[in-house]
Amino acid sequence: MPYQLDRTEIQSLLDEIAGRMAGEVDRGEVANYIPELANISLNHFGIAVAPLDGPPLLAGDADLSFSIQSISKVFGLVVALDLVGATLWRRVGREPSGDPFNSIVQLEFERGKPRNPFINPGAIVVSDLILQNAENAKKMHSVLDFCRKLAEDPEISVDEAVFASEVATGNRNRALAFFMMAEGNIEGDPATVTEHYFRQCSIAMSCSQLAMATRFLAARGKGTADGKAGVSPERARRINALMMACGCYDPSGEVAFRVGLPCKSGVGGGIVAVAPGRGSVVAWSPGLDDKGNSVLALKALEEVALRLNWSVF
Amino acid sequence: MPYQLDRTEIQSLLDEIAGRMAGEVDRGEVANYIPELANISLNHFGIAVAPLDGPPLLAGDADLSFSIQSISKVFGLVVALDLVGATLWRRVGREPSGDPFNSIVQLEFERGKPRNPFINPGAIVVSDLILQNAENAKKMHSVLDFCRKLAEDPEISVDEAVFASEVATGNRNRALAFFMMAEGNIEGDPATVTEHYFRQCSIAMSCSQLAMATRFLAARGKGTADGKAGVSPERARRINALMMACGCYDPSGEVAFRVGLPCKSGVGGGIVAVAPGRGSVVAWSPGLDDKGNSVLALKALEEVALRLNWSVF
Amino acid sequence: MPYQLDRTEIQSLLDEIAGRMAGEVDRGEVANYIPELANISLNHFGIAVAPLDGPPLLAGDADLSFSIQSISKVFGLVVALDLVGATLWRRVGREPSGDPFNSIVQLEFERGKPRNPFINPGAIVVSDLILQNAENAKKMHSVLDFCRKLAEDPEISVDEAVFASEVATGNRNRALAFFMMAEGNIEGDPATVTEHYFRQCSIAMSCSQLAMATRFLAARGKGTADGKAGVSPERARRINALMMACGCYDPSGEVAFRVGLPCKSGVGGGIVAVAPGRGSVVAWSPGLDDKGNSVLALKALEEVALRLNWSVF
Amino acid sequence: MPYQLDRTEIQSLLDEIAGRMAGEVDRGEVANYIPELANISLNHFGIAVAPLDGPPLLAGDADLSFSIQSISKVFGLVVALDLVGATLWRRVGREPSGDPFNSIVQLEFERGKPRNPFINPGAIVVSDLILQNAENAKKMHSVLDFCRKLAEDPEISVDEAVFASEVATGNRNRALAFFMMAEGNIEGDPATVTEHYFRQCSIAMSCSQLAMATRFLAARGKGTADGKAGVSPERARRINALMMACGCYDPSGEVAFRVGLPCKSGVGGGIVAVAPGRGSVVAWSPGLDDKGNSVLALKALEEVALRLNWSVF
Repeated sequence: MPYQLDRTEIQSLLDEIAGRMAGEVDRGEVANYIPELANISLNHFGIAVAPLDGPPLLAGDADLSFSIQSISKVFGLVVALDLVGATLWRRVGREPSGDPFNSIVQLEFERGKPRNPFINPGAIVVSDLILQNAENAKKMHSVLDFCRKLAEDPEISVDEAVFASEVATGNRNRALAFFMMAEGNIEGDPATVTEHYFRQCSIAMSCSQLAMATRFLAARGKGTADGKAGVSPERARRINALMMACGCYDPSGEVAFRVGLPCKSGVGGGIVAVAPGRGSVVAWSPGLDDKGNSVLALKALEEVALRLNWSVF
Repeated sequence: MPYQLDRTEIQSLLDEIAGRMAGEVDRGEVANYIPELANISLNHFGIAVAPLDGPPLLAGDADLSFSIQSISKVFGLVVALDLVGATLWRRVGREPSGDPFNSIVQLEFERGKPRNPFINPGAIVVSDLILQNAENAKKMHSVLDFCRKLAEDPEISVDEAVFASEVATGNRNRALAFFMMAEGNIEGDPATVTEHYFRQCSIAMSCSQLAMATRFLAARGKGTADGKAGVSPERARRINALMMACGCYDPSGEVAFRVGLPCKSGVGGGIVAVAPGRGSVVAWSPGLDDKGNSVLALKALEEVALRLNWSVF
Repeated sequence: MPYQLDRTEIQSLLDEIAGRMAGEVDRGEVANYIPELANISLNHFGIAVAPLDGPPLLAGDADLSFSIQSISKVFGLVVALDLVGATLWRRVGREPSGDPFNSIVQLEFERGKPRNPFINPGAIVVSDLILQNAENAKKMHSVLDFCRKLAEDPEISVDEAVFASEVATGNRNRALAFFMMAEGNIEGDPATVTEHYFRQCSIAMSCSQLAMATRFLAARGKGTADGKAGVSPERARRINALMMACGCYDPSGEVAFRVGLPCKSGVGGGIVAVAPGRGSVVAWSPGLDDKGNSVLALKALEEVALRLNWSVF
Repeated sequence: MPYQLDRTEIQSLLDEIAGRMAGEVDRGEVANYIPELANISLNHFGIAVAPLDGPPLLAGDADLSFSIQSISKVFGLVVALDLVGATLWRRVGREPSGDPFNSIVQLEFERGKPRNPFINPGAIVVSDLILQNAENAKKMHSVLDFCRKLAEDPEISVDEAVFASEVATGNRNRALAFFMMAEGNIEGDPATVTEHYFRQCSIAMSCSQLAMATRFLAARGKGTADGKAGVSPERARRINALMMACGCYDPSGEVAFRVGLPCKSGVGGGIVAVAPGRGSVVAWSPGLDDKGNSVLALKALEEVALRLNWSVF
């Protein structure tokens, strides 16, 4: 690798980016499909970089909690893989869908097997697998507990107002669950399965916490991050490959193109990026583009990847 | 990076893999949609690794020519980007299609704009761009000339029997061309445009030549490979991102998952993999799986990526 | 019209057909998607013709009750039109769907508005309209009450075993309901709406009762049948047009082609045909073809239409 | 039938309608996809009724020629059925498509077999059948000759300016032809097949001529119209059933609903309606609705069917 910044230089870079983002005019629109998410100020911007060792480097609103939404799909996937191993892939595919994140069309053509675990129906099957296989006491809290452990912060919790909002508006996800049940790919009660899914989507975390909680994906068996997640380097690689292929909804290809790193975004405005062998980067700003990805978070990640020379390509 | 093999060790690895592949029983099926491709023996296997500097390392049938087929889409894309720059993306997308390589459905829903340049309609638009923008004398031979230059071998040529076979059976591709013309996304005569496309698909090259011809994508501005292609490091990165997202047809996600490198496959049985900062790897065996990717070439690339620790994840 | 049979001649025709059908070997397969429907003997065959005046003419098992299933969609539509008038068409279309009866794909492309009231999602919207607009006491029984009134038989009832079977296996219909609710086209609770829908599908009636209950569609403002249904000749015509276009699932065109009359079939094996200005014909046999229409009932209707010269074409 | 108007009364009705249509303000838009069709004045309106016997009754511009466009698909179908009989249905279906008239999506899902002969790909297969089976001299003129014979007017001819316009803009139809050829459902050269198709679409006829040329479909083996077409009453019935199901593009159900008769429309603004046992009705006005059916012709047919009590429902 041609050059590598030290911690001080990275900190300067993050401060510079956060400063510049504060002045950006085109900030996108907050998600409007969940009423509770629509109340957040567009002015927020936070960023955190977690190298493989040591504490994360922070700038802007990096310590403010936000709704992690679809980023939770990564944690859910790891929990489910831990419970059932590679048999998970019999029920969820590993390919980009080519359709919007909540499309039901692909499900019909492919008999209820979602294309990948990062679109809604795939994450709902993952929730079903967790509920069917976790020990009783852990069922509903498994993903939250995992986030707390990874981020080393027992205070992380579900935002109950967001959760209530998800429950109140989640009919499309319920349709997906009933549809997959009709095709034999959901075993539990769809109401309980979608509740589990809504709950994990409603977890609130900060950039700082998310960076700590995802750097195990970059560890390749090394660094202080390694081991805590209980995930083998090989499994981490495979999750990274999947994030690269389909972590950012429909335009995952465009994101791979711009950032050059495996990423996972959420409609709360957060995006996680994994730089294998280097560390994790998390940016957050609530304004989304028309595909559901945060405008400023994506812009910031593109710049960080370029300046740190962390693109895998 | 944890370890790195020297040239002798890489050569041993390739010899070992080639030896093992000779004994493989499950070799897939040769492509049957082009009669001329169906005549090739399933027994072939070749592999070549081209580090950023020096000659390539070879094993098995690495010097035997085969039909590069869709691998030519990478060369066509580079030629067209060189001619028209980023305006190319107004006419071709950069996302996985989620549909088979020759599907016309996506084209209808998206008004004649192909999802990416590595599916047939995308490559046909690329051919149209080349024909509309190259100087007269170079139009039909632009991609072939580029391959000769990159591989430093003026003997590389079009397999006329394969070309005749493509012309004789290419009605689906002609349908795609007329359809896109109706939507305003093909400017030239569809017969000429598809002829250009068939011609580039029919170029015959060996693993050795292909490895030399693609290592510029791994160069990141360094090594003897750099410069020859006239492609900036940034453009090479972007092409790599696209190969990662959609280089191997429908199961590109699965390939990213298994190999961990940007790859481009062809129904002639070849697959090119790019390891950014390290070099290129090309494997070839004519037997395909049901998605159109070579069974043994994919297996060999997976192993090389693992043993050389070249996965980007 | 070139000729017209009298009641005695029609009776002879029906007896002859019923006799011949008893010996048919190719009888199709009983519906297997609802366990309770799978227990019925393939040997049944019944037929009834109800001219505009007088009692119906019967043959075979014309007095045996069977599950009317999708035939109930006609009665549901009439009840809903009576409640809300032509505003119904703001929420349900009037076109053939070109897709199987329970497809969710069309719903996604057309934002939750079903193509017509004779496919499952359309009938579910109709149930929602009835529940939202009928007086409290009549909500759940409105369709059953209407059938009793039309057939002049208060004994007609819901087959509770079939209903329980529908409830136990109805996840795909629940998916449709939740999906349409997400798009704003279902107002009530999806569980209650689908229960209403399952209940009307589970009504059991005989050929004789169904012929009496549907001949108002043929009345054109005349005959003893007229008036009882409270449906204007114009509305009856429009329902007939819809049955012609989409009354027999996917192959409605083929049925129009063969029978030449507006028809509505159900997976219980019954098919209702309306001969405008002449009367109604109902045939029943539990064995279905691969499209879900009764093999022998369709055959019998084709013959009756031909022999009575009742085809509208 | 409750009442029947005599010739004088029908003439008065047509005069009244033509008079009223002259004052209509909302006349739709002329077809713009073929440049040559866009030059026609929106002010035209013609109507003709041809009872089973005697000359047709005319009003407005009933003697002005216009481009029959898709109405020609009925004549092409009859010619092809005469040549190859029911084997035609092995290559073309008999169901509504649920998709726009020139959609290629359905073709892909159903392996190159068009849903019916009244959508473009279906009519192109019909042209292929005619070219493969007609005697040499008649190939290109078979449909035109048939129109001349039916209308008893040897002056009927192809509008060469419209034909040239079709040829110049027909790439989508060429795409359909190449696509079906790739699937084995076109045998001839796609350029010749589409030329045949464009030629039949470009035939120019008046309401008067079209009414004479289509009343054989209403004859049921009687009247002076019968016999001339060489079509059995049974075949005529089947064509009528098909026109009812899919004669007016996407909204065929809505047209069946409003007019109550088998109809076939063309983007030249003409619509033919067949009243079995009574006669034919043809109306023409160049302004189309957004589905491609003439606004005023449809309105006029609706009124004629109502006033003559000719609806089959």
